[in-house]
Amino acid sequence: MHPAERILLGPGPSPVPHRVLRALSAPTLGHLDPQYLTIMDEVCEMLRKVFQTKNALTFPVSGTGMAGMECVAVNLIEPGDEVIVCVNGVFGTRMKDVMERCGATVHALETTWGDVFTLEQISAAFAAHPKSKLIGIVHAETSTGAHQPLEGLAAIVQAHGALLAVDAVTSLGGHELRVDDWGIDAIYSGTQKCLSCPPGLSPVSFGPRALARMDARKTKVQSWYLDVSMLRKYYTGGGGGRVYHHTAPINMTYALHEALTIVLEEGLEARIARHAAMHQRLRAGLEKLGLGYIPKRSLHSLNCIHIPAGADDATVRRRLLEEYGIEIGSGLGPMAGKAWRIGLMGHGSTVRNVDLVLAALRTILGR
Amino acid sequence: MHPAERILLGPGPSPVPHRVLRALSAPTLGHLDPQYLTIMDEVCEMLRKVFQTKNALTFPVSGTGMAGMECVAVNLIEPGDEVIVCVNGVFGTRMKDVMERCGATVHALETTWGDVFTLEQISAAFAAHPKSKLIGIVHAETSTGAHQPLEGLAAIVQAHGALLAVDAVTSLGGHELRVDDWGIDAIYSGTQKCLSCPPGLSPVSFGPRALARMDARKTKVQSWYLDVSMLRKYYTGGGGGRVYHHTAPINMTYALHEALTIVLEEGLEARIARHAAMHQRLRAGLEKLGLGYIPKRSLHSLNCIHIPAGADDATVRRRLLEEYGIEIGSGLGPMAGKAWRIGLMGHGSTVRNVDLVLAALRTILGR
Repeated sequence: MHPAERILLGPGPSPVPHRVLRALSAPTLGHLDPQYLTIMDEVCEMLRKVFQTKNALTFPVSGTGMAGMECVAVNLIEPGDEVIVCVNGVFGTRMKDVMERCGATVHALETTWGDVFTLEQISAAFAAHPKSKLIGIVHAETSTGAHQPLEGLAAIVQAHGALLAVDAVTSLGGHELRVDDWGIDAIYSGTQKCLSCPPGLSPVSFGPRALARMDARKTKVQSWYLDVSMLRKYYTGGGGGRVYHHTAPINMTYALHEALTIVLEEGLEARIARHAAMHQRLRAGLEKLGLGYIPKRSLHSLNCIHIPAGADDATVRRRLLEEYGIEIGSGLGPMAGKAWRIGLMGHGSTVRNVDLVLAALRTILGR
Repeated sequence: MHPAERILLGPGPSPVPHRVLRALSAPTLGHLDPQYLTIMDEVCEMLRKVFQTKNALTFPVSGTGMAGMECVAVNLIEPGDEVIVCVNGVFGTRMKDVMERCGATVHALETTWGDVFTLEQISAAFAAHPKSKLIGIVHAETSTGAHQPLEGLAAIVQAHGALLAVDAVTSLGGHELRVDDWGIDAIYSGTQKCLSCPPGLSPVSFGPRALARMDARKTKVQSWYLDVSMLRKYYTGGGGGRVYHHTAPINMTYALHEALTIVLEEGLEARIARHAAMHQRLRAGLEKLGLGYIPKRSLHSLNCIHIPAGADDATVRRRLLEEYGIEIGSGLGPMAGKAWRIGLMGHGSTVRNVDLVLAALRTILGR
C-alpha cells in the first residue's frame, strides 16, 4: 500500500501538511489519559478561536462532516418540529433529508443551484411558516461553489424565536466566519477542507440558545453516538467531572491539534486573505482560458466552473490525475458532467498550485 | 504536543505497531481516487477473513465502536419492533438504550454482571416474547471481561424468525469468532482493541437475512450517516457503480489496512492462540499475587479483576502510569472502584507486557 502524492485540488480532502501527517503518527494514548485530555482541551480552545466564538460547547464530533450535520440536527430537533431548510445544492438537500429523519416537518426554501438566498427571501419564509423553530443554511455549498452571506440573518431568525444552524464544512479556516458576531446558534464543519487535516472529525459549536433548546427537550436524542447531553460531560466536564462516553479517535485528534496550530500560526485573517488572493489569481487565469464560473458569488475555497464545450469531463480529469497527479472534482448530483470543482483549500491554496493547475488545464484543453 | 509512549494495557485503545502508525501518515488520497478505492476494497476483503464471513456487505463504519452498534441498530430496527437485548454489563445496557432510541420495545434479558447467558435462558426469553424480531448480545463484555459463548444460539434465534446481532468490539482478531459458522446476521467491532489500530473506525458485517430485513423496511433509516441502503452503494458498488456517500476517513483506512495485513500475516489461528496463552500466563501470575477474576468465564483479551482489600484504586493506577508508563483500566459503571481491567489485546498481548505488568503490580501492591 503506497498511496501516490496527489495534489488535492478537488472539493476535499485538501493537501495535508507534513507536520499534520507526522502528528497523526504520534504514539496512541488512552482516551482518558491526562495527556490526551490536555490535547483535547487545547483542540477545543483552538476551535473556539477558529470559529470566533466563546461557546464552551465547541468540540470535534467523532465522524466526518456529515456526522456533524447529523449531530446538530438530532440534538436540536424533536419529532413534529417545523423547520426551514435553505436548499440550493446537494448539501442543503441533504440537510432537509437529515432533518426529516429526525421527525421534522421541513419547509424547503429553494432557489436555483449556484444562487444564494437574500434576507428578504428568508423573512418571507418565516412569514409563511411562523412556527418554524430552526433554520438550516449552508454557508459554503460544496456542490455549486456558492458563498452564502450570513450577516443580518440572526436578527430575522431570533425575531421568530428560532435557531440558526449553519453548514460551514467548506468555509471554516478559509473564509470569514464569525459565529458569535453573526449570532449563529449551531454550526458544523469538516477537518479535510480549509483546515487541511485528513477527514475523520467534524468540528461543531453550540451557543447558549441551542443549549437552552437541548435542555428543554421532552424526548431523548435519537442518536446515542451523537447525543450532546452526554458528549458535553466528556468535552466540557473538565478535571474530575469528565465522564467517559465513547473512545475518541485519538490520533485524528493529534492531527487536528497540529492543523489548528498551523492555522493560528498563520493567523486567521492572513489565512482568509490568502484564500481570497488565490481565488482571484485562479479566476483571472480561468477567464483567460475562457472558463466561466457557475455561482454568481463564488467561494474562495472552491471554484465551480462550467465544463467547456468540446471537452470530455472524464478524460480531462483522468489526464490531470495521471499526467500531473492533480485531483479536481467532478460535478455532484444534477451538476454531474456539467461542472468541474477546483478546490483551493488550506495548505493547497498556493501560487504554486494555482499556476500549476492553470498550466495543466491549458495543455490538456489545448488553449 | 508530544504524547508519551505508554504501554496500553487497559480496555482499549491497545498498543499500535509502528507499521500501523507509519501507514497512518501516508499521503492523503481523495476518497474517490482509484488508488483509494483499491485500498478500501482490500480492507473489506481482509475484514471478511478476520470476521470469517463471505458477507459482501462487510466494511468499516466511519466512527468508533459505538457508531458500529448504532449502525446495526438503526438499520435493522423499525419503530414498534420488539427486540431482546442481553444485559450483563455496560455494553448490553448501552445496546438497550441505543435500540430504544430506534423506537424498539426492548425486552431486557438480565443476569449478574460478570456472568454470561445460557442457551436455555435465551430460549426462555424468546418463549416469553415470541414476537421479538432481533436479539442483541455482547460477545466480549468490556465492562466485566465476561466471554459469552455464541455457538448454538443461531438455531434458537432463527426458529423464531429473528436476527442475531453481536457486539464483538473486544473480541475481533483476538478470540475465536466465526460469523458464518455461528449464523450471526449482523456484527460490529472496533479497530482499537485486538486489531491494534488507533480508534476511529468500526468494522461491521451484515449477512443475507439482515439484508432482506433492510430491503423490506417500511420506514427510512433514522440516521443518514449510518444508512446502509446508501453506504452499500459506496462499499460494494464496485467500479463505475460506486456512489459517493460521505468522505471516508482516508488515513484511518490506511492504518486499518496495515493492521489487518499484520493480523493475516500472523494468521488468525496463531493470533487467537497467542491471546489465549498470554491470558493464561497473566492469570497464573495474578493468582500468585492473590488477585482474583470477576467473571467466571474470562475473555483472553481483557482481564477484569477485583481490586484487593487495602489497595487504593486511583493511587495504584496513577503509579502504574507515572512510574511505568503502563495504562490499565478502572472499573466502569457500577464496577467503578471495585475492578481493574487489564487488557492484553493484539500487539499488546506479549510475554514482555505480561511479565512487566505483573512485576509492576507486585512492587506497587507490596506483595
